[in-house]
Amino acid sequence: MTENAYYTQDVHGPYELYEIEALQLEEGGTLRGCQLAYASFGELNAAKDNAILIPTWYSGTSKIIEDVYIGEGRALDPSKYFIVVVNQIGNGLSSSPHNTPPPGGMGNFPRVRIGDDVRAQHQLVTEKFGLDSLALVVGGSMGAQQTYEWAVRYPDMVKRAAPVAGTAKNTAHDHLFTETLVDAITSDPGFNKGFYASPADVREGLLRHAKMWAVMGWSTEFFQQERHKALGFSSMDDFIVNFMNAYFSVMDPNNLLCMAWKWQRGDVSRHVGGDLRAALGRVTAKTFVMPMSTDMFFPPADCEAEWRLIPDAEFRPIQTIDGHLALFGADPEALGQLDAHLTELLAMKV
Amino acid sequence: MTENAYYTQDVHGPYELYEIEALQLEEGGTLRGCQLAYASFGELNAAKDNAILIPTWYSGTSKIIEDVYIGEGRALDPSKYFIVVVNQIGNGLSSSPHNTPPPGGMGNFPRVRIGDDVRAQHQLVTEKFGLDSLALVVGGSMGAQQTYEWAVRYPDMVKRAAPVAGTAKNTAHDHLFTETLVDAITSDPGFNKGFYASPADVREGLLRHAKMWAVMGWSTEFFQQERHKALGFSSMDDFIVNFMNAYFSVMDPNNLLCMAWKWQRGDVSRHVGGDLRAALGRVTAKTFVMPMSTDMFFPPADCEAEWRLIPDAEFRPIQTIDGHLALFGADPEALGQLDAHLTELLAMKV
Repeated sequence: MTENAYYTQDVHGPYELYEIEALQLEEGGTLRGCQLAYASFGELNAAKDNAILIPTWYSGTSKIIEDVYIGEGRALDPSKYFIVVVNQIGNGLSSSPHNTPPPGGMGNFPRVRIGDDVRAQHQLVTEKFGLDSLALVVGGSMGAQQTYEWAVRYPDMVKRAAPVAGTAKNTAHDHLFTETLVDAITSDPGFNKGFYASPADVREGLLRHAKMWAVMGWSTEFFQQERHKALGFSSMDDFIVNFMNAYFSVMDPNNLLCMAWKWQRGDVSRHVGGDLRAALGRVTAKTFVMPMSTDMFFPPADCEAEWRLIPDAEFRPIQTIDGHLALFGADPEALGQLDAHLTELLAMKV
Repeated sequence: MTENAYYTQDVHGPYELYEIEALQLEEGGTLRGCQLAYASFGELNAAKDNAILIPTWYSGTSKIIEDVYIGEGRALDPSKYFIVVVNQIGNGLSSSPHNTPPPGGMGNFPRVRIGDDVRAQHQLVTEKFGLDSLALVVGGSMGAQQTYEWAVRYPDMVKRAAPVAGTAKNTAHDHLFTETLVDAITSDPGFNKGFYASPADVREGLLRHAKMWAVMGWSTEFFQQERHKALGFSSMDDFIVNFMNAYFSVMDPNNLLCMAWKWQRGDVSRHVGGDLRAALGRVTAKTFVMPMSTDMFFPPADCEAEWRLIPDAEFRPIQTIDGHLALFGADPEALGQLDAHLTELLAMKV
């Protein structure tokens, strides 16, 4: 375990914890006393049919979802819906390498898959809240991976699904990109196979990781139009150091690696022996597939190819030059499009 | 100096050497006894108006240009033209960190700019060959940077210009990507600030560098269509280890870093106080701007923006899913398009 002031109620709260005594993991490990951190907004109605589940992305927590996506008058409106944002395992609020006691934490934290998260979330929403349906599952990036996993694994429960800027089966290209992110961290001698004394020992690796996020996370148009200046940074160096690096440098390297490993292997086709068509054919949720138009991680063409395999789904790309990181919400027009699509999806009878 | 069997006549010959006694560098250094390695094909005619100059790209040498681009019946036809392929400084055949004697070599090799290469090349073609015009300057990637530099610096001499898959002024995005490549090498403890005993000491850094080339060098469509299998590799791991890594692992890390520094800073606007429009306005060569349609280093949109600033130029993108590395020539249809454009350009009266 390492102390980390970033992963606290002060920074990300308020959130609640739900404990699963022993989460059996698909790769064979066990998470004992697994904690799922979640934040909820709004009230569950008597029919229990107004629940929305939002899983989180790589490095993200329930806080940015709350700040950027949830609000009265928005699509994700807590005056209408009971919204549960669940932090993925490894993100620092839920059970993660940095907060798991020895010997199971840090570099010994077990391999976790998207399916493990979704089974844990299923236990939370069924046992804690007594839900038997979700009006919507929506998430971006790794949140989209979890959304797809929900829709394929529990089709009877998921009424609507909105995977944003993510895929059902990760591509070879994105797998390789993520490997370069992992390499950036693990190659730092201070990483010490995950048993560093302090995340600061991995400072250089985290900086390299942040730069690589900057290269692929936005878009070439973002750079061409000098969007970083519009976001308040005087130069590219200023942007790299005081935005990209500032964002990641407070996080725990093992936590990031736990999520990266999971991200690389997101793949609903595992349910059907590798047959993606058959897996996506199981989806009964009304689904809007929503890539970001300039996303270099999950390009629209990759998302479109999957959309064609989902019964009765709609392809709703979001136009933006902010690339994958339009998820951060810095492009209000992208947020507006996303809200409009979600509002339409939520209004659909299913 | 380090021995390196890769940078030899056996692998890259035959090539000749031209010596410049002391090349004064724009950054203030001096290359004493600067060697320019070049290969020539065909014969100079009596009018001395059939010369074509081809500068090289990052990591490339005159050999791949010869193998992939030059041939009878091709646009670059040695039965019609006197073709000189000049190896850029730092590429391992011309003066480079690995072949410069101490104390000026390895980690002490001076900073070289695109403009230094082009001035050295100018001396070669004017003094050695007595040329006062070039029918065409054509090059890919860093070869395109040198092509633009030629057309802006020596407009009276360059009759036609064909920058392929490269820009006149490097973008902030590409600069940052290249920085991550540099980081991949310099972060290897074996790099030792450029004073390694053997390039093998930097093996892990070179492997990380090769993976990052794989992520950005091709395209997401390349991966989606599993082009690596069509190229003879059984899996992505096979492709990374036995193609991307095999290609770079024989090279000298300091040589790559010398070229990367130069690549990051390619910018013809330096001639006019940063005014790119004014710099490109100096071009009198008939110019075809030829990006690769899926290039992630030098995206078509970036090349198109520059094309608009060049008098009477034509925008001729090459359709391919091989991305930037279509330059390697694995997509015969891309080569066919390129040949057709060059043939048309060479036939134009100027």
